[in-house]
Amino acid sequence: MKAHFETIAIVGKYQSRDVADAVLLIAAFLRERGLTVWIEQGTASSIGMAGGYAVATYDEIGANSDLALVLGGDGTLLNTARRLAEHDVPLIGVNQGRLGFLTDVGREEAVDRLTEMLAGQYSEERRSMLNVEVLRNGDRVFRTLALNDVVVNKGDIGRMIEFDVSIDSEFVYTQRSDGMIVTTPTGSTAYALSANGPILHPNVGGIALVPLCPHGLTARPITLPDNCTIDIALLPPHDARVHCDGQTHFDARSGDCVRISRSPNVVRLLHPPGYSYFAMLREKLHWSAVPRLP
Amino acid sequence: MKAHFETIAIVGKYQSRDVADAVLLIAAFLRERGLTVWIEQGTASSIGMAGGYAVATYDEIGANSDLALVLGGDGTLLNTARRLAEHDVPLIGVNQGRLGFLTDVGREEAVDRLTEMLAGQYSEERRSMLNVEVLRNGDRVFRTLALNDVVVNKGDIGRMIEFDVSIDSEFVYTQRSDGMIVTTPTGSTAYALSANGPILHPNVGGIALVPLCPHGLTARPITLPDNCTIDIALLPPHDARVHCDGQTHFDARSGDCVRISRSPNVVRLLHPPGYSYFAMLREKLHWSAVPRLP
Amino acid sequence: MKAHFETIAIVGKYQSRDVADAVLLIAAFLRERGLTVWIEQGTASSIGMAGGYAVATYDEIGANSDLALVLGGDGTLLNTARRLAEHDVPLIGVNQGRLGFLTDVGREEAVDRLTEMLAGQYSEERRSMLNVEVLRNGDRVFRTLALNDVVVNKGDIGRMIEFDVSIDSEFVYTQRSDGMIVTTPTGSTAYALSANGPILHPNVGGIALVPLCPHGLTARPITLPDNCTIDIALLPPHDARVHCDGQTHFDARSGDCVRISRSPNVVRLLHPPGYSYFAMLREKLHWSAVPRLP
Amino acid sequence: MKAHFETIAIVGKYQSRDVADAVLLIAAFLRERGLTVWIEQGTASSIGMAGGYAVATYDEIGANSDLALVLGGDGTLLNTARRLAEHDVPLIGVNQGRLGFLTDVGREEAVDRLTEMLAGQYSEERRSMLNVEVLRNGDRVFRTLALNDVVVNKGDIGRMIEFDVSIDSEFVYTQRSDGMIVTTPTGSTAYALSANGPILHPNVGGIALVPLCPHGLTARPITLPDNCTIDIALLPPHDARVHCDGQTHFDARSGDCVRISRSPNVVRLLHPPGYSYFAMLREKLHWSAVPRLP
Repeated sequence: MKAHFETIAIVGKYQSRDVADAVLLIAAFLRERGLTVWIEQGTASSIGMAGGYAVATYDEIGANSDLALVLGGDGTLLNTARRLAEHDVPLIGVNQGRLGFLTDVGREEAVDRLTEMLAGQYSEERRSMLNVEVLRNGDRVFRTLALNDVVVNKGDIGRMIEFDVSIDSEFVYTQRSDGMIVTTPTGSTAYALSANGPILHPNVGGIALVPLCPHGLTARPITLPDNCTIDIALLPPHDARVHCDGQTHFDARSGDCVRISRSPNVVRLLHPPGYSYFAMLREKLHWSAVPRLP
Repeated sequence: MKAHFETIAIVGKYQSRDVADAVLLIAAFLRERGLTVWIEQGTASSIGMAGGYAVATYDEIGANSDLALVLGGDGTLLNTARRLAEHDVPLIGVNQGRLGFLTDVGREEAVDRLTEMLAGQYSEERRSMLNVEVLRNGDRVFRTLALNDVVVNKGDIGRMIEFDVSIDSEFVYTQRSDGMIVTTPTGSTAYALSANGPILHPNVGGIALVPLCPHGLTARPITLPDNCTIDIALLPPHDARVHCDGQTHFDARSGDCVRISRSPNVVRLLHPPGYSYFAMLREKLHWSAVPRLP
Repeated sequence: MKAHFETIAIVGKYQSRDVADAVLLIAAFLRERGLTVWIEQGTASSIGMAGGYAVATYDEIGANSDLALVLGGDGTLLNTARRLAEHDVPLIGVNQGRLGFLTDVGREEAVDRLTEMLAGQYSEERRSMLNVEVLRNGDRVFRTLALNDVVVNKGDIGRMIEFDVSIDSEFVYTQRSDGMIVTTPTGSTAYALSANGPILHPNVGGIALVPLCPHGLTARPITLPDNCTIDIALLPPHDARVHCDGQTHFDARSGDCVRISRSPNVVRLLHPPGYSYFAMLREKLHWSAVPRLP
Repeated sequence: MKAHFETIAIVGKYQSRDVADAVLLIAAFLRERGLTVWIEQGTASSIGMAGGYAVATYDEIGANSDLALVLGGDGTLLNTARRLAEHDVPLIGVNQGRLGFLTDVGREEAVDRLTEMLAGQYSEERRSMLNVEVLRNGDRVFRTLALNDVVVNKGDIGRMIEFDVSIDSEFVYTQRSDGMIVTTPTGSTAYALSANGPILHPNVGGIALVPLCPHGLTARPITLPDNCTIDIALLPPHDARVHCDGQTHFDARSGDCVRISRSPNVVRLLHPPGYSYFAMLREKLHWSAVPRLP
């Protein structure tokens, strides 16, 4: 981790004019402190101006900045993380609405928290990502990354799909279902949770398979070690759609194989002082918060 | 792992006369091959004789034998594993009924499989165990090990219990429920599975918390990294019972803290040639077994 | 339904001195309006005095009063309902803490609401009850009623139990589990809900069977028509405990049959003006409460 | 119920040449017994000929026949039931593969069973259906029936949808989810079961709402009395797809209201001698089948 943050990029919620004020406020705050500020190109474009700040692409940000501030919700952070994944730039998420699972600096307190964090008061957490490929007749026809999850589902067909699951080339089972969620620990509190998937602490080296409405009643979520390779092979005549972080998708065809493994890249999240994963879970899931014993 | 097995202990199902024939058959088979055979004391006692073989306690077996053959079901293997936990003796489970999750050598094929395994054709798997302590006013009043799970439940009281859960001394939540299952990957396919817990592959370094009929509808199973310490503190006026592997229990009192962490000891399971964790899951859970694509 | 309430009984939370003030406040309010007030015997005893009001047993209340006001929580109402079940006395539940599923008049607003309800502004709802018997060698060794649920569980044994379930004398299945919840619609939002049972609207003529941690992964809750008779026969060597509304229990033995059917009696609940079952569910379960379309 | 079956219609699996032999075999069997045989038009067309039997539309079958034999699987029976719903023609389902939930006469035994059933040895069961309408700006833009279920889901959009649910015009909650299954007792063992819905016995007068991957963790299946009207109003900007029995669908738009209520029509299913709902469940769900107590 770099000891000093000198060049800081700001990424705002996609095509949202609402974040313009926040972007400019934070940018001014950073400039006052003598830091170099870059505004992500799409962000600059959607807020209509960049207030005299340098404008940069994700690649330029990745290559040159020491830190990226993400202003938006979890969705914005997921997108930014994938875009910057091959670089080593740490991220801070500043939520513009309710606190998210990933964007844990609140809008109101952003300047105070950033002041502390720029002074080195933060904790860093490394979150694993998934590498996703679609193979067709031996060729790779699609490839991307996911920080939350890869979902293979029935798409617009509205019927069950059928596929074989293999782990490290060993056949595991044939499943008929609405689809399958393959999730990182980060994604385990997102879509997978609503499909009765297990919560995985970010420090567990696991990837979970969570079936969607499986036809067989004994299908259950299973957590695998994160050094394995998962193949989901679509059985004829079933086409399916592959979704990554609920943001990008690819239409896979019958016979295609969706191959998923841990990416060599990780996402570096910086948390403000006092951050606690369990406190965040407790708040988001409305778990009872009052300890009674001393 | 020792290259040669010379002294082999045999442990039979607890107080079962039915395994007598199997014990003597296997013992004779081993003696014929020039190996030293020890019969576990309780086993020798319950089969009524030991056929001229040496009789040994678990401690003697642990200290001196190169391998322990467990004849019984998963329950027998769980018990043996705990008894031998502090030693480094590998185990082979020979089931006397239906194949178990842990006892994966079938009765009929035992001699053939053992012949192969004694010749070095086996795979070794290391399964983690839990160390369990009950703390009362700062004193440790109970301590044991579990290979499957630790269950803290309402015992004979028949009402909900209430407790605080802390991880590495950080308060996580207060829960009202019938109790909590704390499970290893090995135990994730046992009791925890019937409580809607997630399956954990044995190579995942995780411990899962699975609530039993939680009063709060947002309580969900959570998998933690296996280097953490889990405290379950019983809130007044709730007493509870602590079960280990469904085989031993301790009556904890209101105010007690049940502390659970990964044991430094592991269980070494030897599997026959061709063993597959997924094949075992598929068979036990009736997952669809027929791959359709080549 | 009687047009006028003249004799009104008050039942307070069991052995709670805390409800004394509320009991006396409500009693004085009723006496001022010229109504005859009876205090239930145990309530009078636990509040230490009865303020000059008549004291009556449940049977006397059942035979002679036009209405019973229950001051406490859902537990108090469950108990009162069973005690008065064979009479036709309607109940109003006045909660002393958070609103319950059954006690839907709040403490603060009690006088205002009761003023309206005594003037005829209320809605009446009829809730079905279960009749429970334990049969041993053809003899009935236990019989009681339940408004919420009958739970047959492993009691203090701490292990799975095994039993046959029959419906209207037809064998349905053999189950190994921690036990079985048999619930009315009223009980479907209580213990059964934490065991993943379905919510049953009170107007559904159904009884639900909800297995507790079933060993077989395909066991699912099932809702039966409420005119059927459910037999749970304990298979040797399994003893079990039978709980009714979580308040009374009976120790059944291996070989006993627990027979459950709808009681001919119903509980008449009077709700304040504006009562809504769905609004209550929404509040208790934290369902999203803000409709967005006009 | 008519005492005698004189005119019998045969409906085969949609566009399946495989059922041709079965259709002709059964038709010949019926003709031999002096009965009048009609072949459904689409069936006649897809088997390529009608062997000299009368060919009839569903409406003609509905108006004139005493019984319809459905040769196919549950899907064929669902389709036939909807087509004949407004008539009073009883149905017998003859499965061409594995026994279904609805098609309970096996292929091999069909002639024997039909001989018995034509002689009056059968039981009749009445299954309720759902009436589904889509309302747009006050106009009805779609209407159909469903015997299993109505599913309102995200269609090809791949993201959560948001909608208000009202029961009998009372707002119940706003839900964000993948969609909602509204199921009859008949459909409760179909798609709803894979979404963790409750099994409803056919004699329960209920309709169940089963959410699909709800965003709120406290959303649970709820069973409503079957005389209620359920409105699912799509909140802007969410479009959705409405599926009936997984066989027909309609693309609803943001602002549309999907209105579901019990149809005045019922499906009359005739079961062979010895039919048991519970035996069918036991077999299909692999419930333990061996009673142990006499």
